[in-house]
Amino acid sequence: MTRIASVTARLFSVPLDEVLVDAKHGSHSHFHLITATVTLEDGREGIGYTYNGGRGGHATAAMITHDLAPFLMGQDAEDVEALYEAMQWHMHYVGRGGILSFAISAVDIALWDLRGQAKGRPLWQMAGGAGRTCKAYGGGIDLAYPLPKLLTHVQSYLDAGLNGVKIKIGQPTEAEDVERIRAVRQQIGPDAAFMIDANYSMTVPQAISLAHAVKDQNILWFEEPILPDNYAGYAEITKATGMATAQGENLHTIHDFEMALAQGNLGFLQPDASNCGGITGWLRASDLAREADVPVCSHGMQELHVSLVSAQEHAGWIEVHSFPIDRYTTRPLVIENHRAVAPDAPGTGVVFDWPQLMPHEVAL
Amino acid sequence: MTRIASVTARLFSVPLDEVLVDAKHGSHSHFHLITATVTLEDGREGIGYTYNGGRGGHATAAMITHDLAPFLMGQDAEDVEALYEAMQWHMHYVGRGGILSFAISAVDIALWDLRGQAKGRPLWQMAGGAGRTCKAYGGGIDLAYPLPKLLTHVQSYLDAGLNGVKIKIGQPTEAEDVERIRAVRQQIGPDAAFMIDANYSMTVPQAISLAHAVKDQNILWFEEPILPDNYAGYAEITKATGMATAQGENLHTIHDFEMALAQGNLGFLQPDASNCGGITGWLRASDLAREADVPVCSHGMQELHVSLVSAQEHAGWIEVHSFPIDRYTTRPLVIENHRAVAPDAPGTGVVFDWPQLMPHEVAL
Ligand SMILES: [Mg+2]
Ligand SMILES: [Mg+2]
Repeated sequence: MTRIASVTARLFSVPLDEVLVDAKHGSHSHFHLITATVTLEDGREGIGYTYNGGRGGHATAAMITHDLAPFLMGQDAEDVEALYEAMQWHMHYVGRGGILSFAISAVDIALWDLRGQAKGRPLWQMAGGAGRTCKAYGGGIDLAYPLPKLLTHVQSYLDAGLNGVKIKIGQPTEAEDVERIRAVRQQIGPDAAFMIDANYSMTVPQAISLAHAVKDQNILWFEEPILPDNYAGYAEITKATGMATAQGENLHTIHDFEMALAQGNLGFLQPDASNCGGITGWLRASDLAREADVPVCSHGMQELHVSLVSAQEHAGWIEVHSFPIDRYTTRPLVIENHRAVAPDAPGTGVVFDWPQLMPHEVAL
Repeated sequence: MTRIASVTARLFSVPLDEVLVDAKHGSHSHFHLITATVTLEDGREGIGYTYNGGRGGHATAAMITHDLAPFLMGQDAEDVEALYEAMQWHMHYVGRGGILSFAISAVDIALWDLRGQAKGRPLWQMAGGAGRTCKAYGGGIDLAYPLPKLLTHVQSYLDAGLNGVKIKIGQPTEAEDVERIRAVRQQIGPDAAFMIDANYSMTVPQAISLAHAVKDQNILWFEEPILPDNYAGYAEITKATGMATAQGENLHTIHDFEMALAQGNLGFLQPDASNCGGITGWLRASDLAREADVPVCSHGMQELHVSLVSAQEHAGWIEVHSFPIDRYTTRPLVIENHRAVAPDAPGTGVVFDWPQLMPHEVAL
């Protein structure tokens, strides 16, 4: 039994090199990184974190500081799964999902970091151990890129050793989306994996029409064509077109995942450990995906998801996200033979470079 | 066009006279009141608010202060529905539901307050105008009350002029719940409306068993017998027992309401304007209820819901909640002929007694 002595949150507003645009979240100029440090009575420390597109960081930090920290103090840090459940119930009335899922995620990841350090085990082993490497693709937030820049950008992913790319769609007309998709396929060649992401900017008929129009482009999946909540609509699109759909970045509770899998006929599931309840929440979503015979992928946070996805027998692809987190950790993502390689250090393997982050810290 | 000059949040942690207990939220010693003041460039002010059971207030205030306020500044205050939509999309990634729904609720109610003041119209007229009074019942948070105290307590509701009562269930054994239900029915007589609320502490089979056991007690509805997310389970309970179910206090997005109505065969819907997107969100949920031929009721916040429920053709009952909000407003709830009477003042009709609240203010 090792008791929790304190939980502290910090907020960083990290600038992007350029403003990034997708179909429904508008412009991103910064991302918020919210860290949670869990300190045990014996002095050991675990670090967890969550992130968002530049909105909601203060609320997330406030919930960790004012609700989760006092609740966790004095509790046994070892039974991570019990603490996950207890936090969900403690905050249920102002949950489920939303900011609570982000706040629990940060704390849960810190608890896994402590667990890994205590056992001397890396995350990929603790999370299932099926493997240490996984497929990885580059995910652009590139809706506003003119076509030449889009092509240069997808090429940069291939040059970095990835063999899959995803682009944003949701241009003013379907013809423009189709033109960009065809040009990208031309650029990357027939063998690279190619995904498209509409960030739920379409209706079901629009999505079906677009999918038909690019049927010959060998699209691996159509991500969030429609509202994440319209579970049955996802199944409609696949039924009408044969194209696989994917979602997960906007599913925050285990019930969301249950419904999305039961009703959506998803081709791929993309939980994000930073917003579905941390590593505990991600593994539960992954279990549901395995039962549904759906490959488990990830959204964002590649530095952590590389360990989680690699560890699964039913591993799909990790997204290598556009937020430049690699500049702020001590181990930028490793790609070997087109596959991402999980860190082998005990704990989560994600160690922040605090001096790099410090200039971006926001006073709470 | 009247532009928004500022939006400010305040947090109050208001003590309860005694610790109140239900089946799943644990003990309540305080409630959080989070107010939002929207000030226009011409100096006019609208007041909105949300509340919770003592957890999440800092996060809600932080989201209003750091995310919604900067987003709203300079925008036209008059098109409340457009601002509601815009806030939902602006914060979508860290929404939907959860803290975002609470934060939007506070701001939306302030915008309706401004609208009513500008038009010189009370809320019950703006919200539909079907009537100015509605049925009202007393809702106890009384799970921990010994039976004699429970009976005294339900009697106090009748003595106050109400003709309906609701008690918490979820005792260690079904037999204890049944004993309390029978004793309360005995106490209130055959004519008073009687509801039970398990705060989702039961499984479907447990709920069916309990409903069968009290079939002869004329229970108007069985509230949250099971997890709010298990929509289909609600329909199962009604199918097996003939007893009407109700939920709404844990539904935060319009999609939640759509699914609950489509799959749950609910007898009554209980949206709460403090956590489903304010008056705009409540009216949307109410519209869905009308289309589904389900009476619309409310949870908590009777001082505001009296206007919303009274205004609906398909009005059900308002809950007169146990949090003592009446001590902190200038117009305690009015009951006449067993019916709650909506305020007739322009705006929401909810005016806080700030000097009473001030001792409970929490520094942000
Ligand atoms: Mg995406
Ligand atoms: Mg209730």
